[in-house]
Amino acid sequence: MSDVAQAAGVSSATVSYVLSGKRPVTEETRQAVEEAIERLGFSLNPVARSLRTGKSTLVALVVPDIANPFYALLARSIQDELRGRGYHVLVSSTGARRDEEEAFLREAVQQRFAGVVMTPFRLATDAFDVLRAAGIPAVVSADVSFGEVDLVTPDAETAVREALAHVAATGRRHVGVIGGPRDAAGGDPRLERVRKYAAEAGLSVAEEHVVHGEHTREAGAEGFERLMSARRRPEAVMCGNDITAVGAMDTAERLGLDIPGDVSLVGHDDIDFASLVRPRLTTIRYPAREVGRVAAELLLEQIDGRTRHRTVRVTADFVARASV
Amino acid sequence: MSDVAQAAGVSSATVSYVLSGKRPVTEETRQAVEEAIERLGFSLNPVARSLRTGKSTLVALVVPDIANPFYALLARSIQDELRGRGYHVLVSSTGARRDEEEAFLREAVQQRFAGVVMTPFRLATDAFDVLRAAGIPAVVSADVSFGEVDLVTPDAETAVREALAHVAATGRRHVGVIGGPRDAAGGDPRLERVRKYAAEAGLSVAEEHVVHGEHTREAGAEGFERLMSARRRPEAVMCGNDITAVGAMDTAERLGLDIPGDVSLVGHDDIDFASLVRPRLTTIRYPAREVGRVAAELLLEQIDGRTRHRTVRVTADFVARASV
Repeated sequence: MSDVAQAAGVSSATVSYVLSGKRPVTEETRQAVEEAIERLGFSLNPVARSLRTGKSTLVALVVPDIANPFYALLARSIQDELRGRGYHVLVSSTGARRDEEEAFLREAVQQRFAGVVMTPFRLATDAFDVLRAAGIPAVVSADVSFGEVDLVTPDAETAVREALAHVAATGRRHVGVIGGPRDAAGGDPRLERVRKYAAEAGLSVAEEHVVHGEHTREAGAEGFERLMSARRRPEAVMCGNDITAVGAMDTAERLGLDIPGDVSLVGHDDIDFASLVRPRLTTIRYPAREVGRVAAELLLEQIDGRTRHRTVRVTADFVARASV
Repeated sequence: MSDVAQAAGVSSATVSYVLSGKRPVTEETRQAVEEAIERLGFSLNPVARSLRTGKSTLVALVVPDIANPFYALLARSIQDELRGRGYHVLVSSTGARRDEEEAFLREAVQQRFAGVVMTPFRLATDAFDVLRAAGIPAVVSADVSFGEVDLVTPDAETAVREALAHVAATGRRHVGVIGGPRDAAGGDPRLERVRKYAAEAGLSVAEEHVVHGEHTREAGAEGFERLMSARRRPEAVMCGNDITAVGAMDTAERLGLDIPGDVSLVGHDDIDFASLVRPRLTTIRYPAREVGRVAAELLLEQIDGRTRHRTVRVTADFVARASV
């Protein structure tokens, strides 16, 4: 370390900052240190090269739950876009745990990944500062913004209004929601959109008809059971995603409730499952392939040098099937 | 590089071999080089530390298709087992492409991953030699052996015999198979098991009733269509996995064929889908959670120093539902 510092004409601490990415350094300093490392001969080995250039060929996709097919399709799409540029995509699943999310960002800095695409779930909104400081390109795919980092986000307003109008047209009035966890970063935008547009469709969302849980099949089954044991049952249920809706169907079957005869269900995402279950699930389609394509494009632009923070909206569509 | 070589008393080429893992070196040489690197001060940075110790905290799971829920569940299981030991699991999906599989093994060596768990698909059986030479622990999860590397493999003989007896008990005689691709490494053990045990159940598998394709929903749909246009249709179809069986159901619905009225279907794996589709899929359950648990255990034993090559069999079970 001291050899490198001497050759570069900087302090050992500065060399450490360049290598670890723990503190920002000027571009000139980074270059001086990298040139010194190269002069000292650490260049034949790819890990040494990644030390020198600060770049590996690995891009990480970090998602809350790899078992949700939405993320599997997102992964495939990003990989298809980046393969031609020589990058490998590695997927990390955090289980929606904040400690795992934070640990992974540190790991990305330490391994000097070429880029990170992430769907954060419980992170603080300034969590991506550490990547920016280390010069690692990052793109967030989420319903809400996470500070100054590129964002791919749904434009779902029209789709939600269409879904609610569709529910209202079947004569339903009282709508329930199986929302996400209460402590998710950025709240629960999918729930808020239902609340925002219910009245214009002539629907009401009572507080006792809103339940919270993780976005899993089990949580959907439990949430639906709580809604069905309410003093007055909701006549339709808007689910946080399709996996939750499948869980609701599990409970409906167990309780002998007919969908949509006794209660309507609307999902979110339109994963493969949605058209496989019976009844086929009415849902709001958020196109994973397109989201992945946009995320990869934003990442490549950053890798190629763009620094301005961008937001791209991807349109979600209402898909009427047989569960309403 | 030359500084390190001088300090370690070896040639620059030897230092390069230690760093790159491209050729095996003796344990003494590796230690001497690592100590020299440490003396020269490359120790504060985790990437430098990974250079020095040859170990990162990243374990890679490499699978043919992350969109197959079997692999998503396998990933979650391995991650649950390794989290407590401080490892992060990253998943790479190769699209069952040999070039991607080979490229990833090179990447694993370059990044000096702590370990690799892989379901190879088209790799040569000696492909893992490169990991062994680099001292990177590896476990293969597959139906066939890939040389001297730890193997987790199904014990599916009894389950297949039960499935075939179950099909025969419904009066079916002519069985078709939707197999994997012709050029898969190690052939098609699932197809071979059906061929091996059909006769004892009183069933026949005609050559015109065997079709090949990738293990995808699309390939299942195409394969089933070819079987249904045979001069004489098979009365039951054994599918390479559950995803293929779902594709077969797509075609059956399009052709107006009733399952199991017109033709029986048996899947393989018992993913979540299997109990969600209608009719619920009769299948051979290969427990992804248990496979992941065993693979993680074998990997940790190698990380802790065991070197002897091991094979562990995980029992598959026949699950009767409504598609036969």
